[in-house]
Amino acid sequence: MESEFIAWLRRHLPPHPRLRLGIGDDAALVQLTGECVATTDLLTDEVDFILAECDPRHVGRKSLAVNLSDLAAMAARPVAAVVSLALPRAGALELAVQLYEGMLPLAEQCDIAIAGGDTNTWSGPLAISVAALGEPTGRGVLTRSGARPGDAILVTGAFGGSILGRHFDFQPRVAEAIGLHEKYELHAGTDVSDGLTLDLSHICEASGCGAEVELDAVPVHEDARRLAADRRDGISPLDHALTDGEDFELILAASPDQAEAMLADTSLPAPMTQIGRFTAPLGIFSIDAAGNRKPLSPKGYRH
Amino acid sequence: MESEFIAWLRRHLPPHPRLRLGIGDDAALVQLTGECVATTDLLTDEVDFILAECDPRHVGRKSLAVNLSDLAAMAARPVAAVVSLALPRAGALELAVQLYEGMLPLAEQCDIAIAGGDTNTWSGPLAISVAALGEPTGRGVLTRSGARPGDAILVTGAFGGSILGRHFDFQPRVAEAIGLHEKYELHAGTDVSDGLTLDLSHICEASGCGAEVELDAVPVHEDARRLAADRRDGISPLDHALTDGEDFELILAASPDQAEAMLADTSLPAPMTQIGRFTAPLGIFSIDAAGNRKPLSPKGYRH
Repeated sequence: MESEFIAWLRRHLPPHPRLRLGIGDDAALVQLTGECVATTDLLTDEVDFILAECDPRHVGRKSLAVNLSDLAAMAARPVAAVVSLALPRAGALELAVQLYEGMLPLAEQCDIAIAGGDTNTWSGPLAISVAALGEPTGRGVLTRSGARPGDAILVTGAFGGSILGRHFDFQPRVAEAIGLHEKYELHAGTDVSDGLTLDLSHICEASGCGAEVELDAVPVHEDARRLAADRRDGISPLDHALTDGEDFELILAASPDQAEAMLADTSLPAPMTQIGRFTAPLGIFSIDAAGNRKPLSPKGYRH
Repeated sequence: MESEFIAWLRRHLPPHPRLRLGIGDDAALVQLTGECVATTDLLTDEVDFILAECDPRHVGRKSLAVNLSDLAAMAARPVAAVVSLALPRAGALELAVQLYEGMLPLAEQCDIAIAGGDTNTWSGPLAISVAALGEPTGRGVLTRSGARPGDAILVTGAFGGSILGRHFDFQPRVAEAIGLHEKYELHAGTDVSDGLTLDLSHICEASGCGAEVELDAVPVHEDARRLAADRRDGISPLDHALTDGEDFELILAASPDQAEAMLADTSLPAPMTQIGRFTAPLGIFSIDAAGNRKPLSPKGYRH
């Protein structure tokens, strides 16, 4: 089916100013400015989606979106992506087309070229691997390792309950990350894929610091409340917000001054909230409304 | 298991001068010179290897080698690769380590940085996707589309029977491609993954020409003879050479003058053979020892 599918791709992949050579050769040729931010994410059936229960277009979109979120975490500008598919043999061509139909509108929106790929059939379930290339903006890349004690912990958006659908249709915070990195002095950043506290712990580990999270300040998504209400399993909306993951929002570190300026900035495209601060002592602690301080274990999705 | 495996990677991934930021962030930062040659290949259990019957180190090596062969096909210098793994849950950590143990020596030998990856477990069989980044040398990239009628068809090495083991331990023709592209004026090139005639047809299609293959000139690998002798299924060693695939040798197009100079060059690291010429009329034809001209259907592995 690969030759048929390549014919489909030739008709549907738009040109892109950075793409000097696209599909049809052994590799693609992409124009970059000298440094390349490279990331890859693999999504698999029954782990990242349940193919039998969803529209393959959502799966295709998500496979690109999670990579774009990784570029956003580095405040890098997306340039190009390559896509590897392992497709179940039955209905492979139709499935491949649907995956791309989900991917292409997001690619266009985020101005990333689909530069090439590898399309295979097999007896296993669906697996999709995307590798995305970006480039740093003038400020260089944002890493996990620059948070300093006293820095504010800032987040975009709200958290929890992404399983109700947001893990498919989230908007990767590419423009927000680039815009904030340009306008403010950010010390560190990451995106929330595994869970708010677990991803916060990644910044803490890389930066060699701890963190205090004010529980009252954590923006709890309406989906987290719905999920808690539906499931009635004792997991509170706040617990969902702290641990569910796949929110694909940003966690950022910035000095208190810069944080204050960002929080007062009404021109930002995404809502921003300060949920606590980085600390010199290691470990992550929660502070509740009464001022009680407790260890907050960095729970979330561990691969 | 991902955190344990990342700890293993931190101990075993060597530094690389092009790698500004490696594992431990949301994406890697790679130094390039302005243009990026990007490719990806996905290998799956029971299609590209049979995990139950082979050493996972061979699978790991192959997953990188096929990507290096794609860079060689473009005469691009390897710079960095990212690796996505979908691992069966039982024994996932051990398997991941073995895959990398196969990959790392080849990475070192071809001077490519393993820049990052994504490691997952699932209920499906093993799938490995590697995306490799390279950069063009001073001559730019070699493509499939520049062959001209009258050009010689040149190949490195010998063909057929790679299933006996060479599909695992082949040496990607990276140094050969870069060296030849620098020293001679090559018009087009590709690597033989799907099969000699099928990959030759890809150059013909991209270049808008045909080809004549002198059957007597095709270098038949000893493995092709062994395979034909073992199987006794009526498929001749020459048939194996023309159609088996996974030889990962180069097919090159060059003017008759340049071809003559290359064939007389005793300093080349790989044996080179002229197996025919590109023609203005479309279609691929074989010419046998008696001078008989017959259509040669571009058989090989179709995905």
